[in-house]
Amino acid sequence: MFDPINSNPLYQTLGIRIEEAAEGRARSILAPRPEVCWPYPNQPHGGILFTLMDTTMGWAVNTALEPGHNCTTIDCSIQYLSPAQKGPFHCQATLVRQTGRMAFVRAEILDSHRTIVASAQAVFRIIRLKPSSSHSIT
Amino acid sequence: MFDPINSNPLYQTLGIRIEEAAEGRARSILAPRPEVCWPYPNQPHGGILFTLMDTTMGWAVNTALEPGHNCTTIDCSIQYLSPAQKGPFHCQATLVRQTGRMAFVRAEILDSHRTIVASAQAVFRIIRLKPSSSHSIT
Amino acid sequence: MFDPINSNPLYQTLGIRIEEAAEGRARSILAPRPEVCWPYPNQPHGGILFTLMDTTMGWAVNTALEPGHNCTTIDCSIQYLSPAQKGPFHCQATLVRQTGRMAFVRAEILDSHRTIVASAQAVFRIIRLKPSSSHSIT
Amino acid sequence: MFDPINSNPLYQTLGIRIEEAAEGRARSILAPRPEVCWPYPNQPHGGILFTLMDTTMGWAVNTALEPGHNCTTIDCSIQYLSPAQKGPFHCQATLVRQTGRMAFVRAEILDSHRTIVASAQAVFRIIRLKPSSSHSIT
Repeated sequence: MFDPINSNPLYQTLGIRIEEAAEGRARSILAPRPEVCWPYPNQPHGGILFTLMDTTMGWAVNTALEPGHNCTTIDCSIQYLSPAQKGPFHCQATLVRQTGRMAFVRAEILDSHRTIVASAQAVFRIIRLKPSSSHSIT
Repeated sequence: MFDPINSNPLYQTLGIRIEEAAEGRARSILAPRPEVCWPYPNQPHGGILFTLMDTTMGWAVNTALEPGHNCTTIDCSIQYLSPAQKGPFHCQATLVRQTGRMAFVRAEILDSHRTIVASAQAVFRIIRLKPSSSHSIT
Repeated sequence: MFDPINSNPLYQTLGIRIEEAAEGRARSILAPRPEVCWPYPNQPHGGILFTLMDTTMGWAVNTALEPGHNCTTIDCSIQYLSPAQKGPFHCQATLVRQTGRMAFVRAEILDSHRTIVASAQAVFRIIRLKPSSSHSIT
Repeated sequence: MFDPINSNPLYQTLGIRIEEAAEGRARSILAPRPEVCWPYPNQPHGGILFTLMDTTMGWAVNTALEPGHNCTTIDCSIQYLSPAQKGPFHCQATLVRQTGRMAFVRAEILDSHRTIVASAQAVFRIIRLKPSSSHSIT
């Protein structure tokens, strides 16, 4: 189901793959490309971990949207709990509450040893797409 | 001065360039590579804007460190105030306070029309490098 | 102008006084009541500093609202940069951007020596009051 | 066990009671005093909800500290997911990770109908008390 999406240039450039999204939850994996592991080899930059969480949270929100709607990040707070040294990295996002045009979401990233690497909470805005818009992807 | 750093693979892949860093301040520019402008053409993903801020804040902290020290992000809170449609994007980061092993930093991104696109505040931890470490880059 | 508001029970219980609010900015003072200085004498609890910022940011947003509207906090991120030992404490809040039903605000608290004690950024939602509502206070 | 602590002036003034703290978790209740329910009757100000979370998270961290140590909030990000209209309010905090002198904590508040009212994540710093210090309370 996510094959066409996972081939998009952003995910390919960073090493992101969405695994699953349903009923307010989404799961993804980061097998970071060497280019984004800087300044430490094999360790993705914190901004790449953020991108993984942000996009996975967007997919979790998307599962709850009616047709013709999309979502966009208003803000996000991220914590880095451990060095991201042991990939691949697994991200899980959960839609905690949707109310009107707002969605509240949480996510975390675990490394391959199940140690928590990052934790985030975000607010998304839900947007009604104009009829002429052709996509509703996060 | 930043030429060798700006050629690193992360910055090259995303389109980041550090312009200046001195006395608790740092400035950078994002001319986003097309690959990281997804799902909307010409509009960098929010995670790329986060990466720009995070790395620029790290450089602002670095200006205040004694030799043999480095810094790492503990957490960061980012707001998206406007769509990032009019690049290139200019990031300015300011070290607000350093106390012991902690540094408090703020940053914002303006688009080419001087509209604010993103705002962030972060906490960094200051780390003493082991003698064998060879670099102190953010 | 703020006299009737400053006599409300919340502000009186904590020691908050709004000094000024105009054109997207608001200023306030906290002379903390001894009851809210716990566990350290003369040092207001971090939650009281948060309350000072939250309410002052709300007043900054209010200056930009059309009649019949109010605002409410969606989320807020606060940093504690120094111990709050030298009151009274001065808070300044600035509306950075208002867009549709959202307002982005920043604030900081300085102690009586002009040292920064806390920094915050928040998002508020703008709400249209129902005709029967009688007040639009933060 | 918490009786002497719960009688402190801050908790009494706001209506906070710590119920339990053990093994990285803490639970508390807010039966808000009328004075802190402003501007809406029966609805505690968002800063009071923040104070409830901050203090409960501090207790969760405290359960993991060695004797002679205390903790203090570095920063906290809070979301308000629903109006706080149906008290009393139940707060649960969890220490997610402690590493060196840092502790990462999460908390949430539910109303009496089990609806989530607020969500927070915070970073605390762990402090070694000086020998002359007589208490280690949050």
